[in-house]
Amino acid sequence: MAITVVGSVAFDSIETPAGRRDRCLGGAATYFSLAASYFTNVRVIAVVGEDFGAEQAAVFNARGIDTQGIERAEGKSFFWEGSYLENLNEAKTHTTELNVFGAFEPKIPDAYRDSEFLFLANIDPVLQRRVRESMPQARLVAGDTMNYWIKDHRPALLEVLKGLDILLINDTEARMLAGNSNLLQAARGVLEMGPRMLVVKHGEYGATIFHKSTQSGGARTFRAPALPLEEVVDPTGAGDSFAGGFFGYLASQPELTPGAFRRAMFYGSVMGSFAVERFGTERLQELSREQIDERFALFRELTHLD
Amino acid sequence: MAITVVGSVAFDSIETPAGRRDRCLGGAATYFSLAASYFTNVRVIAVVGEDFGAEQAAVFNARGIDTQGIERAEGKSFFWEGSYLENLNEAKTHTTELNVFGAFEPKIPDAYRDSEFLFLANIDPVLQRRVRESMPQARLVAGDTMNYWIKDHRPALLEVLKGLDILLINDTEARMLAGNSNLLQAARGVLEMGPRMLVVKHGEYGATIFHKSTQSGGARTFRAPALPLEEVVDPTGAGDSFAGGFFGYLASQPELTPGAFRRAMFYGSVMGSFAVERFGTERLQELSREQIDERFALFRELTHLD
Repeated sequence: MAITVVGSVAFDSIETPAGRRDRCLGGAATYFSLAASYFTNVRVIAVVGEDFGAEQAAVFNARGIDTQGIERAEGKSFFWEGSYLENLNEAKTHTTELNVFGAFEPKIPDAYRDSEFLFLANIDPVLQRRVRESMPQARLVAGDTMNYWIKDHRPALLEVLKGLDILLINDTEARMLAGNSNLLQAARGVLEMGPRMLVVKHGEYGATIFHKSTQSGGARTFRAPALPLEEVVDPTGAGDSFAGGFFGYLASQPELTPGAFRRAMFYGSVMGSFAVERFGTERLQELSREQIDERFALFRELTHLD
Repeated sequence: MAITVVGSVAFDSIETPAGRRDRCLGGAATYFSLAASYFTNVRVIAVVGEDFGAEQAAVFNARGIDTQGIERAEGKSFFWEGSYLENLNEAKTHTTELNVFGAFEPKIPDAYRDSEFLFLANIDPVLQRRVRESMPQARLVAGDTMNYWIKDHRPALLEVLKGLDILLINDTEARMLAGNSNLLQAARGVLEMGPRMLVVKHGEYGATIFHKSTQSGGARTFRAPALPLEEVVDPTGAGDSFAGGFFGYLASQPELTPGAFRRAMFYGSVMGSFAVERFGTERLQELSREQIDERFALFRELTHLD
């Protein structure tokens, strides 16, 4: 099944203990779609500026990602500059220039309208909701958000949550959204806001999926590990790559069984672990499904008793 | 097989968001031996003061723990006061009174000398080494330490590490000991200092065991989860309870196979998760092996794909 994703396509300047890269291709929709492209067809809705050229387009094309929904606007693309010098788990933002992204009005190509899977990456909840309402055919809708929207745009975000099947956020965001420092209680609070499932990403410790307790069919809380990695070169995009692996795998399945969700959690962790091995999207551009499944097997071995 | 444990038996005054308890029974050797007592015979070496009475002794006796190695000295027992009001993952220490523990000279009862398992809880590495050397018959020796010994008593600690089979410490301590912020590289660095195995405790995210790469027989890196808990009442002693479950289970096994180590990691997580559900050692005093195995099954379900 095809996935449509709406979100940012950007340029990032990143500094980590491993070095520095200027203006590499980034953005949540970029990481998500590259990671998901190893599992299913992906279609992107985004806006870029005149600095987005053939080199950047080629990254999407090489992975067969549909880019007709990437609008070219006058001006510059979204730009982010940040560093992870003191703490690899938390970016320090130096610059955020919205540029053409500031006036983003998502337009959905007709060819995207049969997408049964929809992913609303971290953007203004007003836009997330508009896209969700424009794609009523989507049968599984997942989304991300961040502290800024949770704190300062709560009413709009709560509207989005009502239309989501799955919310994917990190520990801090889950606790902030629910106003509860206990993770299990916070998860229950978030699930009462709308989504049937909540995926909480724990960074280097993996991720946990929580299900609404009213749900039948054997769905259960499940934790996927993150492998202790030899070298974390650049953590940028790990969460979006997790989401791409998770949702991409789900979209590739004939049936959304409880087992499919558990395996999707593992594939999410696998794609996140690849993403951080190189700067920007470098690693996600050059993988093979065989490498992905090898790491899946390693993750299984790392956590299974027999 | 019997375990001998040397470490602190203390009184703790603890404040958490769930409330406050004054002068409850605590200390690393107490949490360790209670947790291990559900799996095997445990013998304690410690020193207490005149404030350690029948009520405290009864806690050990009720679990069949051998206390003839608990020396009674003139003065007061080790006392710790701390709180977890801002962060349940990190204690804020208000008071540490060593009292009789300051002049502790571990004495090993003859009846303990056939213990094949020895656990050196977090105490002065000079004493850890002395106990280890006094018990040459121990065939599996594990130990714990803390930031204070790592920073200020490094030479003595390095001597202890040479005599350890298994070191159990947390993330921060592993990174500090190896001087490397990458967990996998830090683990390798620690293993070069002596121990054949390193267990890194991740608090609410579980724990990982690393093996010396020269080791044969299928031993592999393995991560055990921590269950997302309904209510964390008091995190004190979680790490020592993990160690007790882990080492206690190992001591109960006829053979130390790679599978036994993986199951021991799960039992460690299980005992840590029980410990934090009530203040002090309350929860560890009243468990049954059936409840322990039920939670083991839950942990398996939480992490296994099928």
